[in-house]
Amino acid sequence: MSTITVPECAISVADDVEQLRKAFSGWGTNEDLIIKILAHRNAEQKKQIREAYASTYNEDLLKALDKELSNDFERLVHLWTLDASERDAYLANEATKRWTKSNSVLVEIVCTRSAHDLLLAKKAYHNCYKKSMEEDVAYHTTGDFRKLLLPLVATYRYEGNDVNMTLAKTEAKLLHSKISEKCYNDDDFIRIIATRSKAQINATLNQYKNQFGKDINKDLKEDPKDEYLTLLRATIKCLTYPEKYFEKVIRRSINKTGTDEGALTRVVATRAEIDMKAIADQYQKRNSVPLDKAVAKDTRGDYEDMLLALLGSADA
Amino acid sequence: MSTITVPECAISVADDVEQLRKAFSGWGTNEDLIIKILAHRNAEQKKQIREAYASTYNEDLLKALDKELSNDFERLVHLWTLDASERDAYLANEATKRWTKSNSVLVEIVCTRSAHDLLLAKKAYHNCYKKSMEEDVAYHTTGDFRKLLLPLVATYRYEGNDVNMTLAKTEAKLLHSKISEKCYNDDDFIRIIATRSKAQINATLNQYKNQFGKDINKDLKEDPKDEYLTLLRATIKCLTYPEKYFEKVIRRSINKTGTDEGALTRVVATRAEIDMKAIADQYQKRNSVPLDKAVAKDTRGDYEDMLLALLGSADA
Repeated sequence: MSTITVPECAISVADDVEQLRKAFSGWGTNEDLIIKILAHRNAEQKKQIREAYASTYNEDLLKALDKELSNDFERLVHLWTLDASERDAYLANEATKRWTKSNSVLVEIVCTRSAHDLLLAKKAYHNCYKKSMEEDVAYHTTGDFRKLLLPLVATYRYEGNDVNMTLAKTEAKLLHSKISEKCYNDDDFIRIIATRSKAQINATLNQYKNQFGKDINKDLKEDPKDEYLTLLRATIKCLTYPEKYFEKVIRRSINKTGTDEGALTRVVATRAEIDMKAIADQYQKRNSVPLDKAVAKDTRGDYEDMLLALLGSADA
Repeated sequence: MSTITVPECAISVADDVEQLRKAFSGWGTNEDLIIKILAHRNAEQKKQIREAYASTYNEDLLKALDKELSNDFERLVHLWTLDASERDAYLANEATKRWTKSNSVLVEIVCTRSAHDLLLAKKAYHNCYKKSMEEDVAYHTTGDFRKLLLPLVATYRYEGNDVNMTLAKTEAKLLHSKISEKCYNDDDFIRIIATRSKAQINATLNQYKNQFGKDINKDLKEDPKDEYLTLLRATIKCLTYPEKYFEKVIRRSINKTGTDEGALTRVVATRAEIDMKAIADQYQKRNSVPLDKAVAKDTRGDYEDMLLALLGSADA
C-alpha cells in the first residue's frame, strides 16, 4: 500500500503547472510549494503534469527541477517525478555503469518488480539508452556475477500462483545438496533462482526449511564477506520477502554514522506508491520506532520534508 | 511479405463459421472447403473465425479440426489456425519437451522473431502452460546448450538501428580471438550473440568479415558434426539472415529421400504470412526451381493442396 496522500478534491493540472512555474521564478526557489504539489500527486497525475508543463513552457519539468534544486533533495524530487518505468531504467543504467560487486541495486530492481513492471522498465531502457538492459548488464559484469545477473535480468517470469509441489521438493533437495558442496555458482542453483516463478521459489524454499530445518539464507552465510554470497542472499530476499529486504536497506541507511542518502532516497522514491506502508510496518516492528520518526531524526531541510511527505507522515 | 491470398470482397465471419461446420458434418470431411476458407484468411480473420465458432457451437474450432483431420494435413491446419503467439508457444514447448541436442526449432523461434513477437509468445506460454518459456528451456537443457539457449530465449533485445561501430570492431576481434582458441562456449562470445541487438550483431559480423576475410559461420565449421557448433551457426544465421536460414530448412526438408514434413509444415505455417515471399525468392535463386513446384513434387493430397494455397501457388 501507498503512503502518499493525494488531495480529495479535484486537481487542476493547469494550476499545478502554473504553481510549479511560480515556484521556480523570481529570487530563490519555493521548495515548500514544489513539495506541496509533487509529493502529493500519484503516478498518473505526475505524468499529466509533466506533459502539460512541457507543452505550456516548452521545457521538460525534470530539467527545470534539476536547475532549481540541488543535492539529495534534487535527486529525490527527480526520481519521484519520473515515471516508474523510466525511474527503474535510470537506476538500472546507473547500477550497470557504476558496477561494484556489492551493488545490489540491480538485483533489487529486477527481483522486486512484477514481470510486467520489469518489462516496462526494459522498454523504457530501450527508449532512453538505445540498447537493452540485458546487454549492459552482461557487458559490465563477469564470472559468477554475470552468470547470476544475466538470467535474473532477462527472464520473463511466470506470475501465476500455480505451484508444482513435487518439483518444489526435488529442487529444495537440489539447492541443499549444492549448498552442502559449497557450489553456490552451480548451473542448476542459478537456474532455479533465476527462472522459476516467485510462487514456485517460495514453495521450494518452504520445502527447504521443512526438510532441512533452516532458512536457506542462513545456510548461505558461510562467509559473510563473500560478495557473491551477499548478492545471492539479497536475490532470495527480494524474490520472497521484498518488504523485509527494503526494511533492511532503510534500517542500514539510517542506523549508522552518517546517512546513506542514496539508498534511502531510492527506496522511498520507488516504493512510496507501491508497498511503503508494509515496509514502514515492518520497520516499526523490527526497530520499535515509527519509520517517519527515524527518518526525521536522521535528515534535515527540504530533503527531510519531501521524505516525510512521501512517507505520509502527519508531521509533513 | 506474405504469400497467402485473401478474397478482395468483404468476408462474412458468420458464413465462414457455417461453412466450416458444414465441412465437418455428414459423411466424411470436406477438406477442400476447409482449405478454401482457412488458407485464405489472415491472422485477424482467423481469430474472428475461432471466436465466432466457439460462441456459435460452444466448441473450440481447433478441437473440431483435430477430430476431423489427420496426419500432416491436420498438423498444418492446426498450426496455421493458431494465433502466431500461441503457435510459437506451442512449438517452443514441444521443442523443450522433445529436446535433442540437434534441435534448432527453439533457436529458430527465439532468434527470427522480433523482440515484441517473442514477448507475445512468452505471454502465450504463460497462459497455456502456467510456467515460463525460460524455466522450461533451462530445466530441459544442460551445459553449453543451456549456457547459450537460456540468454537467447530470455533477452528482450533492443530493436533499433543504432549501431556502435567502435564496439562492433572490438567485439569482432573478441569473437575472432575466441574462435582461434576454439573457445566456442566462451562467456563473452555467448554474451555478444545473446544480448546485442540484431543491427549491432550484423555490424559486428560485417567487421569480422572485413578484418578477417571470412564469414564467421565458415570459421565455426571446424567440426561439422559438433552439435553445439551446428546450433551456434543456426543461431547466427537466424539472427542475421532469417530468409536464408528458412530456405535451407525447406531445401533440406524436401531435397532428400523422404520428406521432413515436420520442418516443412512448421516453416510454411509460421512464415506464410510474414516473409514467405522472400524465402521463396531465396529458394528459387538457390535451387533454380520455384518453391511451389518443388513442394508439389514432394507432397500429395490435402497436405499438398494446403501447402500450395499457403505458398500462394497459382496451381492451388
